[in-house]
Amino acid sequence: MQTNSKIFLGTAFTATSISEVSILKDHLFLINEDGVIDQILSPEEEVYPSIIQENEGKDHFFRLAPGQYILPGFIDLHIHAPQWAQSGTALDLPLNEWLHNYTFPLEAKYEDIDFAKEVYEDLVTTLLNNGTTTGLYFATIHKEASYLLAEICAQKGQRGLVGKIVADDVEQNPDYYRDHTTEQALHDTEEFITRVQELAKTTKQGVYPVVTPRFIPSCTDEALEGLGRLAAKYDTHIQSHCSESDWEHNYVKERFQKNDTFALNDFGLLGSKSVMAHCNHLEDEDVRLFAQTKTAIAHCPLSNAYFANGVLPTKRFLEQGVDIGLGTDISAGASPSLYDNAKQAVVSSRMLEDGVDISISQDKRGVKESRITINEAFYLATAGGGESLQLPIGRLENNYAWDIQVIDTNVVNNKLPVFNQEEALEDIFQKIMYLVKPANIKQVWVQGEQVK
Amino acid sequence: MQTNSKIFLGTAFTATSISEVSILKDHLFLINEDGVIDQILSPEEEVYPSIIQENEGKDHFFRLAPGQYILPGFIDLHIHAPQWAQSGTALDLPLNEWLHNYTFPLEAKYEDIDFAKEVYEDLVTTLLNNGTTTGLYFATIHKEASYLLAEICAQKGQRGLVGKIVADDVEQNPDYYRDHTTEQALHDTEEFITRVQELAKTTKQGVYPVVTPRFIPSCTDEALEGLGRLAAKYDTHIQSHCSESDWEHNYVKERFQKNDTFALNDFGLLGSKSVMAHCNHLEDEDVRLFAQTKTAIAHCPLSNAYFANGVLPTKRFLEQGVDIGLGTDISAGASPSLYDNAKQAVVSSRMLEDGVDISISQDKRGVKESRITINEAFYLATAGGGESLQLPIGRLENNYAWDIQVIDTNVVNNKLPVFNQEEALEDIFQKIMYLVKPANIKQVWVQGEQVK
Ligand SMILES: [Zn+2]
Ligand SMILES: [Zn+2]
Repeated sequence: MQTNSKIFLGTAFTATSISEVSILKDHLFLINEDGVIDQILSPEEEVYPSIIQENEGKDHFFRLAPGQYILPGFIDLHIHAPQWAQSGTALDLPLNEWLHNYTFPLEAKYEDIDFAKEVYEDLVTTLLNNGTTTGLYFATIHKEASYLLAEICAQKGQRGLVGKIVADDVEQNPDYYRDHTTEQALHDTEEFITRVQELAKTTKQGVYPVVTPRFIPSCTDEALEGLGRLAAKYDTHIQSHCSESDWEHNYVKERFQKNDTFALNDFGLLGSKSVMAHCNHLEDEDVRLFAQTKTAIAHCPLSNAYFANGVLPTKRFLEQGVDIGLGTDISAGASPSLYDNAKQAVVSSRMLEDGVDISISQDKRGVKESRITINEAFYLATAGGGESLQLPIGRLENNYAWDIQVIDTNVVNNKLPVFNQEEALEDIFQKIMYLVKPANIKQVWVQGEQVK
Repeated sequence: MQTNSKIFLGTAFTATSISEVSILKDHLFLINEDGVIDQILSPEEEVYPSIIQENEGKDHFFRLAPGQYILPGFIDLHIHAPQWAQSGTALDLPLNEWLHNYTFPLEAKYEDIDFAKEVYEDLVTTLLNNGTTTGLYFATIHKEASYLLAEICAQKGQRGLVGKIVADDVEQNPDYYRDHTTEQALHDTEEFITRVQELAKTTKQGVYPVVTPRFIPSCTDEALEGLGRLAAKYDTHIQSHCSESDWEHNYVKERFQKNDTFALNDFGLLGSKSVMAHCNHLEDEDVRLFAQTKTAIAHCPLSNAYFANGVLPTKRFLEQGVDIGLGTDISAGASPSLYDNAKQAVVSSRMLEDGVDISISQDKRGVKESRITINEAFYLATAGGGESLQLPIGRLENNYAWDIQVIDTNVVNNKLPVFNQEEALEDIFQKIMYLVKPANIKQVWVQGEQVK
């Protein structure tokens, strides 16, 4: 047996398919120097007892306490980092007021690097506290503050994918918060990409630059074209918003006489490393295009309740072969927790299936077979996020990164209701998904390093 | 000025109408020996500085730390206490399997008083940790375990309203979990009422017996009639389920050729001390009957997403003059937190307004003007709950009980995103409602006594 950097012993849960969760009871997890899972051993394996005997008590051996469980770290596919400072506020306002009285003025403040540092450090710490080991971030239009966010992820050990936003359209963006020229926007983006790719070399877990047009309405054709070229040149991830609301869906149709998805594709912005937020209003041909190009959806169910005018048909899109993960969409979604969003993904899918308006007869009220299970929501928060980003994360399997959260069901302020020491592990898993709060997340590890 | 038992100094939030939250900045709260608010003084009052000067530093004077805020304790109008042991599990099952494979077998176990003690103590502690100062509970059919729940509320200082369930119908209840005769069910209920009313005399905060037919389908006509008589005889609160699902609504129509509400009213089960869970399928005449009889609704938005086949038109029912409060409906709702339910009440109302199925055109997708604000959800969790129970709780006003939660926005595991020391208190209030976790709830007081 080769030398391993760390060994964990405990019971873990991991998604083995969209709907199945595998229970690894009292397994050994051997993690190599790179922070990657080298071997997973069940108690039935012949070497199991001798590995414990040889390593127990040493610094690199970690045995979970009773009541503790391992889950893969969560992967948040959509975070507006600057908006953390307003999270929870102004959600009762119409979208236009929310944008122009709260969001744009706040994002404009990130020209101030000290302010950016305070908020971004707090946000990354908060996300790690909530079990989020990988984050796909929108920063702001400011290249310095955007780079700072990547640096903070690097320092705190989170796997951060960060985009400097491009928003250069004169009509659609306020004067005080806009890329002043298309040329400058593209120049800043290129500089941002190369700096973050340099920074990445200094980290164990990786940080990644992301090409980030805010959404089609924010950008000129020239900017969108240029961003597609930069993404290809540097082989970066790409993120944007797509077909979120009736308004956006219709705006793009009028401007390009085609759907959002086809316009994005023409600009070279769809592909296996692309993640598009929301996508609630995709039509069948759009869904096919996403599946063909391997473009992923960041499903943000809490945010959608406020701003999307409808529920993502998650179940159907999964069946049509689209990669989907979960996003908090801070701050249109107030919560920094993917637990909250996993639960809401289930709840929203049930409401899509059953319908909402009781004045309509039951057979016509909803959309049959739309519900997803809590197992499927767990898949979205973990393996689905990893697939979406094309990174070896979100599963407890050989050659995947050791990105995990250790859940303690016995903490003082939020003891989970486990009264039967023989309770089925399937049930404990569901209690974890439904009832965990940050206090239960005792440890978080990214790429084999402890970050909480 | 009369002597007061305790004095608090801090910034507080309280509902002054369904939609308005009043901010009491740096106010003094003078609490009398009975745990009731005697006076509330703003910094403008002449006596304000001298009261601080005379009392600061003494044991009965409590000054909130920076970043701490007072909210009224939350009032949970619908809790199935025995189901806490399965909270979070089995929610993906059809209702029938959920009932017969999980819920009824679990509830039957409360014949074992030791098991009941373990779960009920944990539940009451958990609810207090979540800021719930008053709970309206369904226990089980067992009179001893039901009484024990009232005792545990008494001991832990929570204002508990507890019902021994009646479920005597041979067809609708399993043999292993049913009141064996109607006579015994009524006899046990009467004994339970008188014992709890005796127990109440030993508590400061009050505990209350509640007449509790599970729902019409569970009970014979004789049981329902008898329970109506007992409620009148002892002037108790009454609780049940009403028009929750399409199935229930239609079942009662077939059995009585009238709606659930009118049947309940005929049995003497509606009135100002009645709280009916769910009520999603009320028709206009039902809503009028609720308003006339001052019957309240326990709105349980998380539970409804799983089992109600539609969203409660909360906004419309409030406008029609019905008292409404919030319930967790543990364990059909998995969360013990009314924060989670307040947020879901907003989210569900937005989904009712916007609709869910994007294949329907936007103008026909939802039900206009259905949304409620976070202020309105706060009203439901506090003052609305107090109105529903006809108790002087849920508001920070003279002659209301000092039932409060002290929120700390600066705890390690869940620091709220407040970066501007001058941030508007309206915004801080919203951050509290959207982002608090149990760790932020530093203290809980009921009737002037600290219980967390
Ligand atoms: Zn977004
Ligand atoms: Zn119920």
